[in-house]
Amino acid sequence: MDHTRASAVLTLSGARAALDAALEHAHRHDLRMNIAVVDSGGVLLSFARMDGAFAHSGDIATDKARTTIGFGGLATADLYGALSAEDAVIRGIGNRPGVAAFGGAVPIRVAGELVGAIGASGGSAEEDAQVAAAGAAAVHD
Amino acid sequence: MDHTRASAVLTLSGARAALDAALEHAHRHDLRMNIAVVDSGGVLLSFARMDGAFAHSGDIATDKARTTIGFGGLATADLYGALSAEDAVIRGIGNRPGVAAFGGAVPIRVAGELVGAIGASGGSAEEDAQVAAAGAAAVHD
Amino acid sequence: MDHTRASAVLTLSGARAALDAALEHAHRHDLRMNIAVVDSGGVLLSFARMDGAFAHSGDIATDKARTTIGFGGLATADLYGALSAEDAVIRGIGNRPGVAAFGGAVPIRVAGELVGAIGASGGSAEEDAQVAAAGAAAVHD
Amino acid sequence: MDHTRASAVLTLSGARAALDAALEHAHRHDLRMNIAVVDSGGVLLSFARMDGAFAHSGDIATDKARTTIGFGGLATADLYGALSAEDAVIRGIGNRPGVAAFGGAVPIRVAGELVGAIGASGGSAEEDAQVAAAGAAAVHD
Repeated sequence: MDHTRASAVLTLSGARAALDAALEHAHRHDLRMNIAVVDSGGVLLSFARMDGAFAHSGDIATDKARTTIGFGGLATADLYGALSAEDAVIRGIGNRPGVAAFGGAVPIRVAGELVGAIGASGGSAEEDAQVAAAGAAAVHD
Repeated sequence: MDHTRASAVLTLSGARAALDAALEHAHRHDLRMNIAVVDSGGVLLSFARMDGAFAHSGDIATDKARTTIGFGGLATADLYGALSAEDAVIRGIGNRPGVAAFGGAVPIRVAGELVGAIGASGGSAEEDAQVAAAGAAAVHD
Repeated sequence: MDHTRASAVLTLSGARAALDAALEHAHRHDLRMNIAVVDSGGVLLSFARMDGAFAHSGDIATDKARTTIGFGGLATADLYGALSAEDAVIRGIGNRPGVAAFGGAVPIRVAGELVGAIGASGGSAEEDAQVAAAGAAAVHD
Repeated sequence: MDHTRASAVLTLSGARAALDAALEHAHRHDLRMNIAVVDSGGVLLSFARMDGAFAHSGDIATDKARTTIGFGGLATADLYGALSAEDAVIRGIGNRPGVAAFGGAVPIRVAGELVGAIGASGGSAEEDAQVAAAGAAAVHD
């Protein structure tokens, strides 16, 4: 079997495109967000905290994005839905260090491949997820 | 009374046999798993992350295996069942650092003695437990 | 500018080839090692602790491998040399969480690209580095 | 005495101006950097990791910027100089969690007031400090 396989890696240019599209969506909807873009290893590539956004939500945005990477590209809203259908013990996954299993992060895919994730934090879970989705949609191959 | 007692200790050879049997089961069922084998002290002996498996689930696989050791060899699916029957406070055990109290780890016993545990993470709790069980069954005295 | 770039990713097959070559070198030299292989994001792919190896050195082997990734593929012996030439304050880099800045981890490169790292722990820094190098040499494109 | 005083607060716009000027300096000198801008409370405002920059140095860049804030706006190169002149015990300040007491972060001042800090990590301490200084110089009132 092969020792390596070919893959696509998100550049800073791609991460900035995602961040800027997410910021534009947030501005247009008068939302104040922390927005984080991570690569396929969960390492931070690009980050912005908008004026007036919650100061501590930066870590939440980053943890959400890392959680999406950690679960193979699952949007955190879907992970939240899956965990909510379980009983209290299994929900404990959502309490593991670095896991933020509520809506607001989505995968960044190029040609079907998971190259990163973007997380937003500052509004409702739905608003956060829409900001993140606007960012992810801006990345192309 | 005696100051020491004889005990069996899992070798790397035994741990690799468990790991490889678990990997083979996962391949055959098209599952992408993180698999961890720990000794009777909960210390990691052998680990593999399959191509395409969730990146964050490595720690979960190891924590599950350690949780089985920490509860005297109880499969984490059984611990999950026991905790689920309890009220919210006692379920908090499942949130202690390093505890992963949901299906996917089973004890490795030789001649009735607990020599280690194997944990898997990447599919449903049931799939994880089946992968782990396939690994544990490969260890003999 | 491009949003993504092409890259090579280390497979489990490649990680196991590195691990097995490192184990073989250690056996041949009668060394007892913890050996860890991580991908280009620093996430664990493959691990083994040999019979009789120090139990706590598993984390050291993994931290060394992650340190090599974190410093762009620098062997930890070279990082150690660079830090030793500095005064006491800058050596503080070696005390950061997750950093293990002493010999025993080397990069895994394929066609010049950093695809992972391998760390060993259990002997002298020099022995550890030789075990790691034997592993890294087994990975090809 | 007054219960409040007027203060200037760094906006995301100002933080991005600093980040972009630092990135431009790094590009011009062929350096690969992690760059972090924090506000006067040490909270992250803006971050970028350039293609090929050390993956682990993101935290170092942020910690350096926070260290400058934590010591009243002292550039970390000056803190490094001050600590190096002290004996081993006082140098321990450089090992406190979150402190990165080596060159690479400088204060961002507007009309003499400390409004933030910018940290860079990826090259020598001197290169890092020059990148950070190029960023700080771009912020005006």
